[in-house]
Amino acid sequence: MDIMTGKQSIQFPEAPHILCSASVVGKKEGEGPLGNQFDLICEDPMFGEDSWEKAESTMQAEAAQTALGKAGLLPSQIRYIFAGDLLGQLIATSFGVESLDIPVFGLYGACSTCGEALSLAAMTVSAGYADHVLAMTSSHFGGAEKQFRFPLEYGNQRPLSATWTVTGSGAFVLSRTGGHARITGVTTGKVVDYGVKDSLNMGACMAPAAADTIYQNFMDFNRQPEDYDRIITGDLGYVGQTILIDLLKEKGFDITKQHMDCGIEIYDRETQDTHAGGSGCGCSAVTLSALILPKLAKGSLKRVLFVPTGALLSTISFNEGQSVPGIAHGVVMEHC
Amino acid sequence: MDIMTGKQSIQFPEAPHILCSASVVGKKEGEGPLGNQFDLICEDPMFGEDSWEKAESTMQAEAAQTALGKAGLLPSQIRYIFAGDLLGQLIATSFGVESLDIPVFGLYGACSTCGEALSLAAMTVSAGYADHVLAMTSSHFGGAEKQFRFPLEYGNQRPLSATWTVTGSGAFVLSRTGGHARITGVTTGKVVDYGVKDSLNMGACMAPAAADTIYQNFMDFNRQPEDYDRIITGDLGYVGQTILIDLLKEKGFDITKQHMDCGIEIYDRETQDTHAGGSGCGCSAVTLSALILPKLAKGSLKRVLFVPTGALLSTISFNEGQSVPGIAHGVVMEHC
Repeated sequence: MDIMTGKQSIQFPEAPHILCSASVVGKKEGEGPLGNQFDLICEDPMFGEDSWEKAESTMQAEAAQTALGKAGLLPSQIRYIFAGDLLGQLIATSFGVESLDIPVFGLYGACSTCGEALSLAAMTVSAGYADHVLAMTSSHFGGAEKQFRFPLEYGNQRPLSATWTVTGSGAFVLSRTGGHARITGVTTGKVVDYGVKDSLNMGACMAPAAADTIYQNFMDFNRQPEDYDRIITGDLGYVGQTILIDLLKEKGFDITKQHMDCGIEIYDRETQDTHAGGSGCGCSAVTLSALILPKLAKGSLKRVLFVPTGALLSTISFNEGQSVPGIAHGVVMEHC
Repeated sequence: MDIMTGKQSIQFPEAPHILCSASVVGKKEGEGPLGNQFDLICEDPMFGEDSWEKAESTMQAEAAQTALGKAGLLPSQIRYIFAGDLLGQLIATSFGVESLDIPVFGLYGACSTCGEALSLAAMTVSAGYADHVLAMTSSHFGGAEKQFRFPLEYGNQRPLSATWTVTGSGAFVLSRTGGHARITGVTTGKVVDYGVKDSLNMGACMAPAAADTIYQNFMDFNRQPEDYDRIITGDLGYVGQTILIDLLKEKGFDITKQHMDCGIEIYDRETQDTHAGGSGCGCSAVTLSALILPKLAKGSLKRVLFVPTGALLSTISFNEGQSVPGIAHGVVMEHC
């Protein structure tokens, strides 16, 4: 199979390894179903800082240091960081990675950024541009609400279609060898815009992009849903999940059995009152690190398609009446 | 020489070619010293749209289509877009590339994004992940002032250290063959923070990052300033240029003879009242396309180090009293 596979995928001749990863989350995430699987749960939503934004930077720095610690690597052994967050001009990342003194590629793909970071990191290691790289994303409930909707103090009501931004950061060390999971291919997403304008229904904004990328992945690799043990979207939540499954059925694929969504996994629907599920750059990252990679490492999952989903929303474009386009980046991971 | 060169550089075994490029600018840029070299000058600052942000998206779409037209390529022949802008959540890019229907990696490195886009695009083509990719950035004076400082209607006074955000977009088609300039290496920058907090003195915020990347490029490639015909920063302007030259002198390198700054080249200091020079994601992009690449193609420049410079500023971090860190990405381009 060619390196350039199909219309928008890459099959790596030398698949990079996910050497190790780390997840750092807030209190609410720690109280959820994955609570005992995260590396670090911080009870203080400010992470000891005096603003939500600084808290998120601290969370990123903690995630990076924890991942490096597990890998037994010093920051100086990491050649590049691929990282991003949801805040305007990526301030969580800029201030979060500053002290690591590592060359950095700043990325933005809304909540799909984890897929974008893992894709570019894998491309970089596989091409021989680096021995070790770090891929990392984060989000923070307080910072995201302030950025995109209303400050928490305002106490606005949330419709049932709304998702809850995960306070969390996931970091991944990709290397030429080591670990028990590899990235064997990627399918890079396009901007997909069905004209949805509801900033409190991110699932509906992103589902068409997820469907587009998953469908393209099937085409490019000549695969069926059954070729994956799980097809894992980032943060579609319950609303987006329904739309995604419908859209793919229209294209002739039924992923009901394989589909899993990080936004659905991370909170308990009955007790945690998060409405449609979790979301944010950190949602798919911490769920990948805490729930999925351990299963890939054990071999209870052999091959998954990981598809973080992003809603390309900004308050400026929203207030000017524009739609919320979506994007989703697919990453194929296999047990090794 | 190894692919991984020194601490933070790559030397491409198969250097990708810059097949062609395009520049689209606004009225003020068209009245400047490079006026007759741009591909398209739009007299209407709104580019026929009803907001600055939509204007910027239209400008990106125009730049992309112009570059593709020169290359004789259809959008479907471009495998990936690497693009970004200065607006929160990259809305100029999201809406600008939507209609092209090409897989996209969204990037943010403030005004260094052009260097980040060219670096990742070059890495992608050289590794065999794509035959043709598009690297693109943009900025718009109206949108940037609204985003970072004051709305134009407020009519605030600007200090002499302030730069003027360029209304412009540059697009570059990178391919395995063709054209008369190649990207032979890249030096990826780190976040460098000297603690400067003045959002109206971007030159001072970015100069330390530029010095760091240029110094590292000299170390990694074992080069001296004389090994480059020009060392071209993105938008340091007059204030940043002085600081950069001083910082590199402290490290033992005098780049006075080689240094050139896109922010200084693009406006006329005497007649255009832009104070410290031009800035923005579009500044280095359109200057590279209109002024530098033609000289590389003719061979009047043989080898240049192109170093777009970014100030990692957001109104949120600024209002919370944080500093403005800088980042700069180096791209080595040679005549071929």
